[in-house]
Amino acid sequence: MNLLPPDHPLAGATSSSPLVRAYRGDRPESTPVWFMRQAGRSLPEYRALRTGTRMLDACLDPELASEITLQPVRRHGVDAAIFFSDIVVPLKLAGVGVDIVGGKGPVLEHPVRSAQDVADLRAMTADGVDPALFEPVAQGVRATVAELGAIPLIGFAGAPFTLAAYLVEGGPSKDHLAARTLMHADPEAWRDLMAWTADLTGAFLEAQVRAGASAAQLFDSWAGALCLADYSRNVAWASRHALAGVRELRVATPDGVELGVPTVHFGVGTAHLLEAMHAVGVDVVGVDYRTPLDQAARAVPGVPLQGNVDPALLAAPWPVLEAHVLDVLDRGRAAPAHVLNLGHGVPPDTDPDVLTRVVELVHGLVTSPRKLHLG
Amino acid sequence: MNLLPPDHPLAGATSSSPLVRAYRGDRPESTPVWFMRQAGRSLPEYRALRTGTRMLDACLDPELASEITLQPVRRHGVDAAIFFSDIVVPLKLAGVGVDIVGGKGPVLEHPVRSAQDVADLRAMTADGVDPALFEPVAQGVRATVAELGAIPLIGFAGAPFTLAAYLVEGGPSKDHLAARTLMHADPEAWRDLMAWTADLTGAFLEAQVRAGASAAQLFDSWAGALCLADYSRNVAWASRHALAGVRELRVATPDGVELGVPTVHFGVGTAHLLEAMHAVGVDVVGVDYRTPLDQAARAVPGVPLQGNVDPALLAAPWPVLEAHVLDVLDRGRAAPAHVLNLGHGVPPDTDPDVLTRVVELVHGLVTSPRKLHLG
Repeated sequence: MNLLPPDHPLAGATSSSPLVRAYRGDRPESTPVWFMRQAGRSLPEYRALRTGTRMLDACLDPELASEITLQPVRRHGVDAAIFFSDIVVPLKLAGVGVDIVGGKGPVLEHPVRSAQDVADLRAMTADGVDPALFEPVAQGVRATVAELGAIPLIGFAGAPFTLAAYLVEGGPSKDHLAARTLMHADPEAWRDLMAWTADLTGAFLEAQVRAGASAAQLFDSWAGALCLADYSRNVAWASRHALAGVRELRVATPDGVELGVPTVHFGVGTAHLLEAMHAVGVDVVGVDYRTPLDQAARAVPGVPLQGNVDPALLAAPWPVLEAHVLDVLDRGRAAPAHVLNLGHGVPPDTDPDVLTRVVELVHGLVTSPRKLHLG
Repeated sequence: MNLLPPDHPLAGATSSSPLVRAYRGDRPESTPVWFMRQAGRSLPEYRALRTGTRMLDACLDPELASEITLQPVRRHGVDAAIFFSDIVVPLKLAGVGVDIVGGKGPVLEHPVRSAQDVADLRAMTADGVDPALFEPVAQGVRATVAELGAIPLIGFAGAPFTLAAYLVEGGPSKDHLAARTLMHADPEAWRDLMAWTADLTGAFLEAQVRAGASAAQLFDSWAGALCLADYSRNVAWASRHALAGVRELRVATPDGVELGVPTVHFGVGTAHLLEAMHAVGVDVVGVDYRTPLDQAARAVPGVPLQGNVDPALLAAPWPVLEAHVLDVLDRGRAAPAHVLNLGHGVPPDTDPDVLTRVVELVHGLVTSPRKLHLG
């Protein structure tokens, strides 16, 4: 049964929200806006709440994760919440030894370097990935959407390559050389690893949507380390597989039409991969700050785009940032629809008032088919 | 006086070497080959020699640095030596507090974050950059070229942006956010910082050429973190300035012609910047492993290319690596000239025999204007 229940937010509460409309290719009255990593990090109310709690413990505490998810919505008035989590959460829930170390990122107890290491991972979910694994997150999602009402929650998961890169490298890395080496040195182990991460992360994404998320974003943060040939041959199939569960879901809207759940695909430094990342089967492409949106629109014609304010500009004097945001909105007109976002996550030391001011700026502009006007 | 002396290697000994010919746009009988980071790291004879010596001390010991530079030439039979050094060496010699920490990279004592920090840097070279600063390196270069004979030595330096990124970040970083933030938050301090690093690193490069290097490579390792607009507006002018000293040098060849010193420009993840990086005034563009050479040749038509074997393939089974090297050579035919190299530095755990085998493969092929033949 792939029809979501009638009380799912996407069946009513969020179905005509600006974000969902834009993700479906429409231009609402003003451009919707949210920020990657808006939950956490830069907010003082978040830091107060997190004191004494480890990152992964916070992600797995439904009440805490839900509150952290809601904080930026209350403060900035953004058009979407994104669930407070981390892409290694499904690994942790599957039993992989992983922790998130402050100032460093995810650290794996046992990096995956051999066919045997991959077989050990597969043994963890020998009977298939049980959706019950994700119950702490699903609970948090249910609590969050109950509070959000008409504002959509975006569920998210890491793409198979990015998860595999963490697993093989044992932590963050610059060019993911160990992962890319395994890809070529032991193609069979690589395929097994990608199939396992795709199953796991796909089920994690689907669990968030079933619990009430109105859209799903796949983060292939490190895909930019790959050349197009490697991405197309050794990675794309797994990302497509990870998205399959969510893509089969349907919701009956108030208009009596059955629609799918909007999906977004984002990576960093992926100018050369935009077309291939769209082709795995997503509705929206997220663009990092390096590629101007008009250029991205030429790479994936007819596709709604999300992005791509440069986070480095958030600390610039307001007139400089304002001009940059207006330029991003203007270039975004080259796409059929546009959701304003950053071209990478919110830096931890960002002044939250600046983000609020960006939201006010974007919401104060009324879109028209031809150009933007000050509202 | 910008004419190099008649006993400079480029005036005779190396003037018709395959590397220099290729850098000048010619196709020698077989494609020249060398490897970024060939000196050091992966060689057991290097590790034996380095035991108990800190990285920067090794770079500044003329005899040791020269020996390390020669090791891969003896072992692999490559077509060029590249001086064993590090891009932070000129910072160290100028008096900046910097060390290279194993497994991490350069770490700055005092990251540069304000206009005052930049002013403090400028005060270090208030009377201009004295070439005598670089004497330990120049000595090493002179000793090396005396041994090399007909094999050219490549001098190298970091580009101003990459040096500035280290100075501002205080060490390695993923997206160089602090540096990019300074660029926009305090454009004047940024310009001063770039002017200072350009003067310093340009003088460092020129000192290596005057001491006997037959070519000069500028590494803008982190330029790929920039969008084209930022590169063009805030970075390119400084790289052009850094190259100016070397570009003014002339050498009288045995044919009685005055020629310049070949220059190469390389960065990682710079597919979107290739044209702009060529336009700062270099002869050859180095291409990272992400951009196929035929595609790079379309971005910078008529320009000799260097690259771009994926280091991740060095650990693959030989037939896989061999096919990849042949593919790189084949795509390199789209450029007027090609120097085979990696698309990034030699990974520390590379089997040196694999590099030797790659050199043998490349040298065993005879180039023709139309296609490659097994020799």
